[in-house]
Amino acid sequence: MKEKNKLKVRFLGGVGEIGKNMTAIEYGDDIIVIDAGISFPTDDMPGVDLVIPDVSFLTQNKDKIRGLLLTHGHEDHIGGVPYLLKEVNTPIFGTKLTLTLTENKLIEHDLKGNLNCVNPGSTINLGCFKIEFINVNHSISGAVAFAITTPVGVIFHSGDYKIDFTPIDGNGMDLTRISEIGKKGVLLMMSDSTNIEIPGYTMSESVVGSTLDTLFSENADRRLIITTFASNVHRLQQILNLAKKYGRKVAFSGRSMVKVSESASKIGELNIEKGLIIDIDKINKYKEKEILIVSTGSQGEPMSALTRMATGEFNKVVISDKDTVVISASVIPGNERMIYNVINNLYKRGAEVVYESLSPIHVSGHACRDEIKLLHSLVKPKFFIPVHGEYRHLKKHVDLALSLGMKKGSAMICEIGDTVELTKNSMKRGESFVAGSKLVDGVYVNDENSYVIRDRIHLAEDGLIVVVLTINELSKTTLAVDVIARGVSLPDEVLEWLKEHIQNTLDEADLKSYDRTIIKNLLRKGVRKQLLNKTGKSPMILPIIVEV
Amino acid sequence: MKEKNKLKVRFLGGVGEIGKNMTAIEYGDDIIVIDAGISFPTDDMPGVDLVIPDVSFLTQNKDKIRGLLLTHGHEDHIGGVPYLLKEVNTPIFGTKLTLTLTENKLIEHDLKGNLNCVNPGSTINLGCFKIEFINVNHSISGAVAFAITTPVGVIFHSGDYKIDFTPIDGNGMDLTRISEIGKKGVLLMMSDSTNIEIPGYTMSESVVGSTLDTLFSENADRRLIITTFASNVHRLQQILNLAKKYGRKVAFSGRSMVKVSESASKIGELNIEKGLIIDIDKINKYKEKEILIVSTGSQGEPMSALTRMATGEFNKVVISDKDTVVISASVIPGNERMIYNVINNLYKRGAEVVYESLSPIHVSGHACRDEIKLLHSLVKPKFFIPVHGEYRHLKKHVDLALSLGMKKGSAMICEIGDTVELTKNSMKRGESFVAGSKLVDGVYVNDENSYVIRDRIHLAEDGLIVVVLTINELSKTTLAVDVIARGVSLPDEVLEWLKEHIQNTLDEADLKSYDRTIIKNLLRKGVRKQLLNKTGKSPMILPIIVEV
Repeated sequence: MKEKNKLKVRFLGGVGEIGKNMTAIEYGDDIIVIDAGISFPTDDMPGVDLVIPDVSFLTQNKDKIRGLLLTHGHEDHIGGVPYLLKEVNTPIFGTKLTLTLTENKLIEHDLKGNLNCVNPGSTINLGCFKIEFINVNHSISGAVAFAITTPVGVIFHSGDYKIDFTPIDGNGMDLTRISEIGKKGVLLMMSDSTNIEIPGYTMSESVVGSTLDTLFSENADRRLIITTFASNVHRLQQILNLAKKYGRKVAFSGRSMVKVSESASKIGELNIEKGLIIDIDKINKYKEKEILIVSTGSQGEPMSALTRMATGEFNKVVISDKDTVVISASVIPGNERMIYNVINNLYKRGAEVVYESLSPIHVSGHACRDEIKLLHSLVKPKFFIPVHGEYRHLKKHVDLALSLGMKKGSAMICEIGDTVELTKNSMKRGESFVAGSKLVDGVYVNDENSYVIRDRIHLAEDGLIVVVLTINELSKTTLAVDVIARGVSLPDEVLEWLKEHIQNTLDEADLKSYDRTIIKNLLRKGVRKQLLNKTGKSPMILPIIVEV
Repeated sequence: MKEKNKLKVRFLGGVGEIGKNMTAIEYGDDIIVIDAGISFPTDDMPGVDLVIPDVSFLTQNKDKIRGLLLTHGHEDHIGGVPYLLKEVNTPIFGTKLTLTLTENKLIEHDLKGNLNCVNPGSTINLGCFKIEFINVNHSISGAVAFAITTPVGVIFHSGDYKIDFTPIDGNGMDLTRISEIGKKGVLLMMSDSTNIEIPGYTMSESVVGSTLDTLFSENADRRLIITTFASNVHRLQQILNLAKKYGRKVAFSGRSMVKVSESASKIGELNIEKGLIIDIDKINKYKEKEILIVSTGSQGEPMSALTRMATGEFNKVVISDKDTVVISASVIPGNERMIYNVINNLYKRGAEVVYESLSPIHVSGHACRDEIKLLHSLVKPKFFIPVHGEYRHLKKHVDLALSLGMKKGSAMICEIGDTVELTKNSMKRGESFVAGSKLVDGVYVNDENSYVIRDRIHLAEDGLIVVVLTINELSKTTLAVDVIARGVSLPDEVLEWLKEHIQNTLDEADLKSYDRTIIKNLLRKGVRKQLLNKTGKSPMILPIIVEV
């Protein structure tokens, strides 16, 4: 087989790490891309706003790209679309809600995309690929899996999914169609590994409705505040239905809650009864028991409406002992301290708080172990690559595939930058390509290992000492030494001692024979060692030489 | 009753926040202190090593202090002892292991303490107080509760506890003695709230032994590496017993593991069979199945033995597919990413990894809801203050006390800095006193709201721009403008633009009529606004004026 006729799957994200989902499928002169996600910075990336995939490979192959396919509208699948579009102008395909959320994102970046709405059950053709959109359940509506017919065979990409037998909109994951596709033969499956460690099945979204119904009834005399992810439209729908049932007006709070509910209602994904919604400024015209506030801030985000309510900085909603706050979301790992701070502060203001560790008021959007087994049994792929999870999840997903009877070489764990080459009968690792992460920092995009971030970490841990040296240009004698410290605990006497020490170092050195770089290094080295001994810290030393 | 005859309980830590446990009990001219803990810095304290209680109150009343009582040897109860001793020289009372660990800590600080060993079941007198040490179970041996007889009544302080009916050393929590004390009448109980949200009972430590036994048997042909908290002596004992049973030599890895096992063995708390332990350098002389490595690093601490094994930086132990790594600990909130990184890296090197979400290889050291109910039922205190937990835990603990029949005003939530005044028949909040946290940063101790930390956070988020202005002292004309950036993403053209902008600002201003402070502010203001517009970041601006 000629090189150009190999089917290649390239991972730009979504394997081995959470977030940054992006996969390219290539055959001959055609490339399609699945998802363009972002992830959020970890503790070792201070000041970074977002982490996006390095798309150099796509930029270099922009002529081959036939389209971007979006599985659903979560940030880790669509958040990178604006950044991709700035590099590669490609048509975008997705379901209604996915495109609406993508469009909102493009507008923020002053971009206009070529957006093409595809309904679940429909098929589109892009280059040599035929792509069928298949309905799945997830914690957002409009989520789909893809069955991609290629010249070599069918690739099944699950997207993020769960199997909900009692979904809110009546549209369950299309298991019938998936089993038909499986029966005809699937060459490669790529599927969601997030909840592989959790046994059994994920609970249905409708379970949350029952729990919330009980809460509405138990708190009939109190004001209710519910926080959830704005994009979880089915959750919102259940909450609105309950508000109607219990005779409460609904006020949305938080920019994304207002925006997403408007967008979703406009396209018919969210059914808002006329007169149900009131402006947040009007809530005090009603009694507590007549009001439901639906708010952002389920992760304790510092600037969110709920966080500001909890600290008393949100004057539109003043928390008191007449409030019951329901946090209808799970804690994303890394956000524990933030959300528990919010909960503690709400309690301090007298509110009752209901959260996941106390009551089933949230369900995951990802399939658990037994659902994952079911998908494997229906799709029966020849080859398998787990996606969407940390390495530990991918590893266990491969183990599960093997335990279901797959041959050892037929399942493979990939990393970002890996290419996998497929024929009708084989799957092997191809050459790796340039991939990874870029860091969005204000208006600039930095490399992953940028010295900017390393400097910030150094500054954060140990602070900074600026040494300003004024030197006579001609005589090369020191006219003045000044030391300025920021982010370092230094008593005045240590500062004085430091100045003296620098002066001595300079006196000992013969300035005439040194150039600026050597003087700077001399200062850096001398000061660092002395400071570490004296203070236990190793601040960044910034020597500045002014020659006059 | 005269002022001096009031019984006062003062909270210097341990209420409303995890860690920093410290309570003072005062009557007349006598003060006793319970615990002197530290906590670990959160994300908003970059570069901080430890957080210790502000002990100004104790320093000001050092003549009244009769002793420091330690409930057990965990960092959040003894870690602050060296810092307290530097301020207040007081005798220290604790059980054998607690004092051994405290002594190790004092040696690190070049301190010698007046350490007094007290066995559970014994009673000591300090000023007007009589203190009985009562055995409890916890994730460290030698943990005790205190029954403190005061002139006003008995205070029962639980320390950290769980009720283990099948403890490893045969010494269960002394429920018989506690029920006797309860029967005689307890004025005030202060007790552990950590696991109030978890229903039922905490599993016995011996459950872990059974799980580990199964793992030893299932991994008979592989090398075993077990990581746990060094201070969990009962866990260590079970692990050593299994090593003997399955014919493995044991190598300790990590400084604290080596040190604590030595100390605990010396005082007879850990029984180490002769010939069982080998040096970590000798492990390669044995087959995989003959070796067990017991290592630190259960929280994924960056410099720990396990973390370095996982990244391949620990040349004494090279991880391969012949290793099974057992993480016999739970994840302390905030450490999730670190520990999961370690697990992912171990999998990448081919090891099998067993951790809490997969198997019951760890149990908590704190009582769950039903155990907490049992303690309340036995102690039957007149008044109650929950300790050791976040506000949400304290709140639920008070709710639980009320649900068990306590009167509403008899249970109180306290915060750090609160004084509670007790008589035989009343408990009320007294005047608050100066309390809070101090931050240990290298060799210095800073205030909680130190500008040093604020500067570091600013530097970490936005970086730094140093503007060096050389001005002729006499003519007040600008000789040179230099701009240096660290931790900021600035392309060269922006740097050049910035220099020009600064030059323009200076040209427009009349330097002669301004003083240095005004020039500096002018630069700061001008640069900040322009940069925010252009880059989306607001770096720290450090203007330096050199007059020549």
